[in-house]
Amino acid sequence: MSKLVEEFNDYRTRMNEVILSKNNLVMKRLWNLDTNTYEEGALDKKTKEMLGLVASMVLRCDDCIKYHLGKSYELGVTTEQMYEIFAVANIVGGTIVIPHTRRAAEYWEELQTNAQ
Amino acid sequence: MSKLVEEFNDYRTRMNEVILSKNNLVMKRLWNLDTNTYEEGALDKKTKEMLGLVASMVLRCDDCIKYHLGKSYELGVTTEQMYEIFAVANIVGGTIVIPHTRRAAEYWEELQTNAQ
Amino acid sequence: MSKLVEEFNDYRTRMNEVILSKNNLVMKRLWNLDTNTYEEGALDKKTKEMLGLVASMVLRCDDCIKYHLGKSYELGVTTEQMYEIFAVANIVGGTIVIPHTRRAAEYWEELQTNAQ
Amino acid sequence: MSKLVEEFNDYRTRMNEVILSKNNLVMKRLWNLDTNTYEEGALDKKTKEMLGLVASMVLRCDDCIKYHLGKSYELGVTTEQMYEIFAVANIVGGTIVIPHTRRAAEYWEELQTNAQ
Amino acid sequence: MSKLVEEFNDYRTRMNEVILSKNNLVMKRLWNLDTNTYEEGALDKKTKEMLGLVASMVLRCDDCIKYHLGKSYELGVTTEQMYEIFAVANIVGGTIVIPHTRRAAEYWEELQTNAQ
Amino acid sequence: MSKLVEEFNDYRTRMNEVILSKNNLVMKRLWNLDTNTYEEGALDKKTKEMLGLVASMVLRCDDCIKYHLGKSYELGVTTEQMYEIFAVANIVGGTIVIPHTRRAAEYWEELQTNAQ
Repeated sequence: MSKLVEEFNDYRTRMNEVILSKNNLVMKRLWNLDTNTYEEGALDKKTKEMLGLVASMVLRCDDCIKYHLGKSYELGVTTEQMYEIFAVANIVGGTIVIPHTRRAAEYWEELQTNAQ
Repeated sequence: MSKLVEEFNDYRTRMNEVILSKNNLVMKRLWNLDTNTYEEGALDKKTKEMLGLVASMVLRCDDCIKYHLGKSYELGVTTEQMYEIFAVANIVGGTIVIPHTRRAAEYWEELQTNAQ
Repeated sequence: MSKLVEEFNDYRTRMNEVILSKNNLVMKRLWNLDTNTYEEGALDKKTKEMLGLVASMVLRCDDCIKYHLGKSYELGVTTEQMYEIFAVANIVGGTIVIPHTRRAAEYWEELQTNAQ
Repeated sequence: MSKLVEEFNDYRTRMNEVILSKNNLVMKRLWNLDTNTYEEGALDKKTKEMLGLVASMVLRCDDCIKYHLGKSYELGVTTEQMYEIFAVANIVGGTIVIPHTRRAAEYWEELQTNAQ
Repeated sequence: MSKLVEEFNDYRTRMNEVILSKNNLVMKRLWNLDTNTYEEGALDKKTKEMLGLVASMVLRCDDCIKYHLGKSYELGVTTEQMYEIFAVANIVGGTIVIPHTRRAAEYWEELQTNAQ
Repeated sequence: MSKLVEEFNDYRTRMNEVILSKNNLVMKRLWNLDTNTYEEGALDKKTKEMLGLVASMVLRCDDCIKYHLGKSYELGVTTEQMYEIFAVANIVGGTIVIPHTRRAAEYWEELQTNAQ
């Protein structure tokens, strides 16, 4: 597995456990709700992940971007489609999205390597 | 035509003319590029408009939301799909997105009325 | 009742009804969760409303600010305390918070008038 | 005087008085400091106002934009220069800055009318 | 002392010295004002630090979060209270606050270790 | 060459190549347009770089800040002028800009060292 992908997943899992161990009900319910949000509905899962990704990009949240890149990869988003999502994010959010696009592009490459 | 929709379109058209009349090349080219971004590609127009909409919602830009609501309506997004987009925006962006969702919901109702 | 306070409450109620009528489960659950967040816990209600207010101020969400001003008023936050919250918001968020502070100050005055 | 300019100035003056009347020391000192920031220094006043304007535009604060437009107009920024500032703001901040640019363009026109 | 806490404090101290050595009066006065903002007043220090923390969380400023976590720890905020602040920040600011909450949770654990 | 400056430039160049290799037309045209934006016009290059810098600071984009610091250095912005730009950014954007100012101050020092 790619080191970048592995490190992201490990830290995420480890800290989620710390947070959940404190039993804050609002945090727990928000996380369940977050999972529900991306489930199949009137829109399919793939579209919803793309929506979550573009929202994360314009809000410039690198870890959120990585998470949705991973899910989008699993759901079969192609590289050409991915760069059209990047384009929407950069046009709506401006050139301040570029550094986040660089890190997204790097992680997207790692996800392909990862799978080989 | 609904008054809310009409007022939005009129002000937008009028001020776009003022801005374009100044012949700033960067502004003109950015606007052309903005149009290109939402054209059919590896992703279809409807998906791209939904991406533009969710990005506008989490960035809390009411006029951008109205614009993409109008386009999404024309392209046949259903109310059930629309509220799933609202849900993604509210989960990713938090409860500060709620007031913008209220105005989006109002405008979405007006668009239906508009068409009758 | 002050016109400003009444208009805010009326529009909010009316549009919340529109949104809830669409039966989007994520939206409904997020709203319930939002209510839970501000309930008495390890921190008291008043502190939680002040936290919600300062968060709304730095994120510059006028309607969210109005909502938390109303709740803070009901829970007995004094004007001197309120302006210390305004001060934190303006220092953390910068002078771009000033216009929102003006509207907050106006609404806070209205809430007092309202009660007379 | 243009109605748009007058209304902005009047509301601003009136609410500043309300805020200052509460004698919150942090708020008072922040406002003094805000004034100092734009005084002549290693950079001239005009450059500083342009910096304040572009910062206000990318942060999408309409009232802050109006304030710096007024100051920039007084200090002799030309329309051609102004639109180059708009261009930087739109490129850095993306198309979500466009609706704020429309309102800025409208106010800039009013400032010229105002002076006639 | 925990390595994470020590590194944060060291870098902060070192760079503050660089900045202050340039004698920019506005920067110096802003920093003094920042200190004043959190002093005992109509609200106690602990409440003010919690306000500063939640504001930093929704604005997603990791270093600001660390600073206020340190202060909150010194002032006796409990872990249960801390997670209620996290909950407000995540509800108001949305799931994009989660990655910052992970880093906040990690730093909060380190602060306890630090003290042993 | 300073290690900090070199690492920034290397990563930027490497990832730009990855992104451009995918031939997304919107991304390519946005990047060209970005270059055009800072060219000599009614405002000179130095002023435009300062505008780009202050916009990047209030939007808290560290990589964008580094890029404009590099350009500003090449165009002869003095340290005294630079700290006046920092001051505007910190006043407009608030104390959440401070951590980014620390990293900007560090990079600015490295640029001087770099040149020796």
